[in-house]
Amino acid sequence: YQILVIGGDGIGNEVTAWGKRVLEEIGSLYEHPFAFDTALLGHAAIEATGSPLPEETLRKAHGSDAILFGAIGHPKYDNDPSLKVRPEQGLLGLRKALGLYTNIRPIKLFDELLNASSIKPEILKGADILFFRELTGDVYFGEKARKDEGKTAYDVMIYSKYEVERIAHKAFQAARRRRKIVHSVDKANVLESSRLWRETVNEVAMQYPDVELHHQFIDSAAMLLIKNPRMFDVILTGNLFGDILTDEASQIAGSMGMLASASIGDSTGFYEPIHGSAPDIAGKGIANPLASILSVALLLEYSFGMKKEAESVVEAVEKTLKEGYRTIDIADNNTPKEKILGTKAMG
Amino acid sequence: YQILVIGGDGIGNEVTAWGKRVLEEIGSLYEHPFAFDTALLGHAAIEATGSPLPEETLRKAHGSDAILFGAIGHPKYDNDPSLKVRPEQGLLGLRKALGLYTNIRPIKLFDELLNASSIKPEILKGADILFFRELTGDVYFGEKARKDEGKTAYDVMIYSKYEVERIAHKAFQAARRRRKIVHSVDKANVLESSRLWRETVNEVAMQYPDVELHHQFIDSAAMLLIKNPRMFDVILTGNLFGDILTDEASQIAGSMGMLASASIGDSTGFYEPIHGSAPDIAGKGIANPLASILSVALLLEYSFGMKKEAESVVEAVEKTLKEGYRTIDIADNNTPKEKILGTKAMG
Ligand SMILES: CC(C)[C@H](C(=O)O)[C@@H](O)C(=O)O
Ligand SMILES: CC(C)[C@H](C(=O)O)[C@@H](O)C(=O)O
Repeated sequence: YQILVIGGDGIGNEVTAWGKRVLEEIGSLYEHPFAFDTALLGHAAIEATGSPLPEETLRKAHGSDAILFGAIGHPKYDNDPSLKVRPEQGLLGLRKALGLYTNIRPIKLFDELLNASSIKPEILKGADILFFRELTGDVYFGEKARKDEGKTAYDVMIYSKYEVERIAHKAFQAARRRRKIVHSVDKANVLESSRLWRETVNEVAMQYPDVELHHQFIDSAAMLLIKNPRMFDVILTGNLFGDILTDEASQIAGSMGMLASASIGDSTGFYEPIHGSAPDIAGKGIANPLASILSVALLLEYSFGMKKEAESVVEAVEKTLKEGYRTIDIADNNTPKEKILGTKAMG
Repeated sequence: YQILVIGGDGIGNEVTAWGKRVLEEIGSLYEHPFAFDTALLGHAAIEATGSPLPEETLRKAHGSDAILFGAIGHPKYDNDPSLKVRPEQGLLGLRKALGLYTNIRPIKLFDELLNASSIKPEILKGADILFFRELTGDVYFGEKARKDEGKTAYDVMIYSKYEVERIAHKAFQAARRRRKIVHSVDKANVLESSRLWRETVNEVAMQYPDVELHHQFIDSAAMLLIKNPRMFDVILTGNLFGDILTDEASQIAGSMGMLASASIGDSTGFYEPIHGSAPDIAGKGIANPLASILSVALLLEYSFGMKKEAESVVEAVEKTLKEGYRTIDIADNNTPKEKILGTKAMG
């Protein structure tokens, strides 16, 4: 089992170090021969090599069975939109190169964190959503350019039928193993690409007569997600709308610091927290490593089929929360000071 | 004062009838010569004339001083993405024809509704956000088409500098009269149009050194809006991101049924609730007319400069809420049954 560890930028490195430690423990406890390598991506890669996605990283990625990733992004680029070489190109390039078209983001609240959210506990209790976000298409990868001497800028939002079909199948299949409800999110009342999305999802749905399909406009979905999160089972959506909704949905799980994701394509699986590089807290030793550790659980299950091992990781997280330990992002008014841990202690 | 009333589709007609009644009352109380006319838009217009935006509606719109609008949309089109003539084209066409590039959406919670939201009262208390959503550009109005024999569909997300400048100025000017903070929302780490947006907002900001400017990525903004709504004062964003964020923000105000909006351009102002046509409750007489009535307050203030009259409308809404009256969407577990009103009684 060849595992590539890419910390990336900001808190990415800090939290991924603990994800890796958990993998090492699992490897020795269950006697799995995990072999690790590391690589650069994003701002860190630009600094070292000039490219956000160095050749070497790409080669190592293709040669590994699974990738544990941290986060990407740096304020330098956010403050200067005119920079041509940008960290995010590394992550987007790798997603594309590995054909990672399905991004799976489970949103489930640990009972212990019921009070950590800004949403009322009675609204949240029992919420359990599985997001299928398309990851290699949409306005992320359409043509983008300037014209009129730089005074106009555009990005093409684009989807082809086969791209919608393949992820729709994954979503319906997953719904079959759950509550059998799919909400497909688009903006078909305005966008042609959304109308293609909706038509195609309708066609795929015919093969899953046992699964209930609902369509929801993105604006309405953004509202319903917090108004009534329990109405959702599987949510299927495009790259941009998925980006927005899953960040929003992090409030259902109490904190962004708790959410893991799996990106699946044709071969190598890619696992990462949904949180970003959080430059404001980077280097302070307070970042929550649980999203990285829960990403490890997804890696074990999806890439290696190690269900028992994955469960033991999730149980360890649950146990730690039950014992009252919190990082600052998931602490609430009732958390005693001595139970608030830094990255290392929580790891 | 020539006022055009366009009910539109679904509950649009039911709620706008009460908005109009309030205008009539104000007219007779304050002795203003309000003259009314009506016109068709959306599905209703397609049924009657074949076009979602009939010539006559366009002519009447241009000839009026202000427009009070209801809502648009019909399930027939949502279920059949292949239909070429669609209700929303009427609304989008009218926004474009009237040059309504600034959509202002105030999000303010009436104290009485503190418990109507899914968000915790202690998170909401004091939240007061003014959205500036660009309304005549972005992926809404870029080229949209099919190719590859209909198997690929695209929409061009596009912004020009002057479009960003004019709405940015409006947002900074408004911030000056408030808490002097602007959050500009984009996805500049991925989109070229967002990078142009960010550059331009940075340039405009130099003329407002007394206003604090923050940039926020849309994913992160969608999360922070419900995690910590009080951090926001003025939010400035594009058409698509504004559509999503304002619907989401309706949870801050307790219900979508409470939110009004003003669309301002070069001359005629356009006022509408932010809620949709809600086909599921249309005709049942239970829709909340307060968003339409609060849209009337915006109309009086923005189009006619009638501050006192506008305030009296808002005060009437406050008083009614204080007396405990609710429509079903803003009722909570403590609302006695006899205080839950239908559209007419609330109107
Ligand atoms: C860093 C950024 C490019 C990325 C995205 O928008 O996909 C991130 O927000 C995510 O959700 O993984
Ligand atoms: C009906 C629809 C076209 C419209 C939009 O997306 O602008 C609505 O959602 C709104 O926010 O006014």
